[in-house]
Amino acid sequence: MTELGSILKRIDPADAASRRKAEERLGQLTMPFWALGRLMDLAVDLAGITRSLKPPVARKAVVVMAGDHGVTAESVSRYPREVTVQMVHNIVNGGAGINALARLGGVRVAVVDMGVAGDLEDLAGKGKIIGRKIGRGTGNLLREPAMTREEAVRALEAGIETALDMAGETDVFGTGDMGIGNTTPSGAIISVFSGRRAEDIAGHGTGLDEEQRRHKTDVIERALILHRPDPADPVGVLQKVGGYEIGGIAGLILGAAAERKPVLVDGFISTAGALIACALSPTAADYVIASHRSMEKGHRIALETLGKMPLLDLDMRLGEGTGAVLAMHLLEAAARIMTEVATFEEAMVSREA
Amino acid sequence: MTELGSILKRIDPADAASRRKAEERLGQLTMPFWALGRLMDLAVDLAGITRSLKPPVARKAVVVMAGDHGVTAESVSRYPREVTVQMVHNIVNGGAGINALARLGGVRVAVVDMGVAGDLEDLAGKGKIIGRKIGRGTGNLLREPAMTREEAVRALEAGIETALDMAGETDVFGTGDMGIGNTTPSGAIISVFSGRRAEDIAGHGTGLDEEQRRHKTDVIERALILHRPDPADPVGVLQKVGGYEIGGIAGLILGAAAERKPVLVDGFISTAGALIACALSPTAADYVIASHRSMEKGHRIALETLGKMPLLDLDMRLGEGTGAVLAMHLLEAAARIMTEVATFEEAMVSREA
Repeated sequence: MTELGSILKRIDPADAASRRKAEERLGQLTMPFWALGRLMDLAVDLAGITRSLKPPVARKAVVVMAGDHGVTAESVSRYPREVTVQMVHNIVNGGAGINALARLGGVRVAVVDMGVAGDLEDLAGKGKIIGRKIGRGTGNLLREPAMTREEAVRALEAGIETALDMAGETDVFGTGDMGIGNTTPSGAIISVFSGRRAEDIAGHGTGLDEEQRRHKTDVIERALILHRPDPADPVGVLQKVGGYEIGGIAGLILGAAAERKPVLVDGFISTAGALIACALSPTAADYVIASHRSMEKGHRIALETLGKMPLLDLDMRLGEGTGAVLAMHLLEAAARIMTEVATFEEAMVSREA
Repeated sequence: MTELGSILKRIDPADAASRRKAEERLGQLTMPFWALGRLMDLAVDLAGITRSLKPPVARKAVVVMAGDHGVTAESVSRYPREVTVQMVHNIVNGGAGINALARLGGVRVAVVDMGVAGDLEDLAGKGKIIGRKIGRGTGNLLREPAMTREEAVRALEAGIETALDMAGETDVFGTGDMGIGNTTPSGAIISVFSGRRAEDIAGHGTGLDEEQRRHKTDVIERALILHRPDPADPVGVLQKVGGYEIGGIAGLILGAAAERKPVLVDGFISTAGALIACALSPTAADYVIASHRSMEKGHRIALETLGKMPLLDLDMRLGEGTGAVLAMHLLEAAARIMTEVATFEEAMVSREA
């Protein structure tokens, strides 16, 4: 059995008994019933995920999966392809948006080279990034499959291995992405799993004008006609219209679920990865927490397809894991509520009539 | 001139030049333009408020204004009035929701006795709370004015003095409330300033059923008919249908604005206080940040009337300043974005075509 197959077998549902115990304790806290709303829902989720009423959340990591995309040849992004490599260096140097937010939250940033077109072997050799390069950028999905089926499986397994390697020192995972052009494959994936047209999903990405957005929509629609990806074959979807970093994100989610760790999914690209992960293992969804709703047009549809309500909605559209890292504060807040707030009995406060 | 009058004169608008400089820097960061959305808007606001591109945000405090309400005699809350005193003790002992969230965020919790009906002199004497008691609970607004006009001014001034006293050691203020029955005066205040009927505003509070909610609506409508509070006379509104702690919140906002400090407004009760503050000084609104949208029915209308968009929307309805404290993390995130993210030039990243 492949690693992918064995991991899929290892993913158990969240624990219903722990969820019930958490609900019971939260219902006795010195506040009107469920007065902290979604923080309390989140505390219940955490209990079910970790099998604990004192869910560990201190050791946080965001994993930024990086990869390039052949479809950038079709002018689907305003930024040149070399920006992927440049931004990996910027993250390693601590100067990107994700670094600022991660420092604030005490979150470790791990960058994985899943398939960047440039040379990152030096950074990987020095241990500054994790080298898992499957290829030097995907094929142009408008003309050919993004990758081979074997590469798709390897991308998923690289993500899984990253999660397993980090699980011993990580309580909470966040997903992140870096890859110029990656809203195009993500839009294609979301279209496949939602059954909605690319027109309803493709957004302005890093800043396309309306004409450029329509062009991107057209590229996605033609790719879907060419490849006919089947949502019942998630590996095939990744192979035909995906990306190496998207496979890495999907694998990371599966690995986190197998290790019974909560995984905060970032925005548009990460949600495309989550759709692949949850198509491979619907049970993995128990471990997935949607961090935020991105400004990217189709993210609402993607989240609905995933069946998750986002925690934050702040008109963000950066990726890199920025939404996931911001939402980690809410996860920690949820854990604190469950562990630190006194019950009516403990605090000798009168209950409601 | 009263302290209230002199403070109102001291409140200057946020600085437009600092806002422009912040916009300029944020536009050069290594990310698609404005890709962190509302965090970047918030960074601009912070620059305008503090006159700095490195706005200080490290020293955070939430001020929980506590008071009792004569209208509890009309069965407008599910909790008995003594819970206000009990919850003040619970907060002082660190066991309330606000304590758990404040510890997570490194936020100082200051409780002010603005007008609790019970004895808190012991806690005030020991410095565990700030004693500013104006009266032992307000009058029953269904039968009489909540307080005298002189008391209303004193409540505002007590809030102002609290802000001025704390300003030297506080970069960011948050408002909070504790007072059984206080959604009723808050609903009345929001009705006055929004011009909307109590039916559109009164919610389920700490857990009223629909019949009890209709009763509360009726109490508010009858009080408004009895007192005819005039939105052009904000002190009169506070006097007739307000509360001591609501006056304290309004004063705290005015004091923070005078000291050019950002003040995160919590939920339904705090927004009622903010409406009074901003009616007294429309310029003070420049310093007000809406932290979250509460589940309490009329909070949406209250925020629209205040002209503020909330940062968080998590089905919370606890008060105590819990929403304000949660949102402080976003304020810190905004400051980090402005100060720690590299520009395209600094990081040698290619710009968009």
